[in-house]
Amino acid sequence: MKKIILALAVASVTAVSALSALAEESNPAIVHRQGIYKTMAGHMTAMKSILFLGFEAPADLAFHAQGILDGFGHMGNAYPPGSDKGETKAKPEIWTQPDKVKQRAMDAVGAAKALVAATAGTDKGATIAAFKSMGEKCKACHDDFRKE
Amino acid sequence: MKKIILALAVASVTAVSALSALAEESNPAIVHRQGIYKTMAGHMTAMKSILFLGFEAPADLAFHAQGILDGFGHMGNAYPPGSDKGETKAKPEIWTQPDKVKQRAMDAVGAAKALVAATAGTDKGATIAAFKSMGEKCKACHDDFRKE
Repeated sequence: MKKIILALAVASVTAVSALSALAEESNPAIVHRQGIYKTMAGHMTAMKSILFLGFEAPADLAFHAQGILDGFGHMGNAYPPGSDKGETKAKPEIWTQPDKVKQRAMDAVGAAKALVAATAGTDKGATIAAFKSMGEKCKACHDDFRKE
Repeated sequence: MKKIILALAVASVTAVSALSALAEESNPAIVHRQGIYKTMAGHMTAMKSILFLGFEAPADLAFHAQGILDGFGHMGNAYPPGSDKGETKAKPEIWTQPDKVKQRAMDAVGAAKALVAATAGTDKGATIAAFKSMGEKCKACHDDFRKE
């Protein structure tokens, strides 16, 4: 009997996990901001390949930097009330520490602008430094406001 | 003795899996194309939120459509020889069926251009139709050439 109960419990947990994985998030703000962040992460990944792995597309660095800056410009109302409900890694602190969130966002936008400026030139070292700074600003916000 | 060997075997497999998960992919073409695809997937996700979930950023549809088209324009040499080696979902058929790959890519670029054109107008229905067509072209290539 105990074995049956255990088996049912395991099956039930498995079923719930499977359903949860299948359910698509429908909170508009959650879906939208995850889409925007994904574009920015993609640009960072492409830049990493060009800057550090030797992918031959140096002329594209400026495109990717602009893509990151553009992402910030198209966040819209990213964390409206109620958008803590759903499949999100956003920590509750986002809604209780708005000034800190704003500061982190301004820091990141500043780094994106510096990255755009660096990629307008031909100094690869300057672009690498600006890229690392951008990554640090991303991480600073993730550390404070994103669940692992 | 058998138990010890089994335990060592299990520990060894676990260690290899853990290492594999930790190791960052370093094949430049794999990292680059994954970054580019991520930007495009992000734009699709943001558009989905605006078109179907009611996220209030209708003026951004054209930006996202252009971002998808731009992605194709910045793929570079996406599948060079040797870029089948590493953490990639690319099926071997990519390198054995180049004509089919090219056709799929041209179909997708065509859909992206149509999406850009649709978002230049104000007909939401036309944008939704173009968005769905874009998604179908993505899926057609994934079905043929991307591992699950």
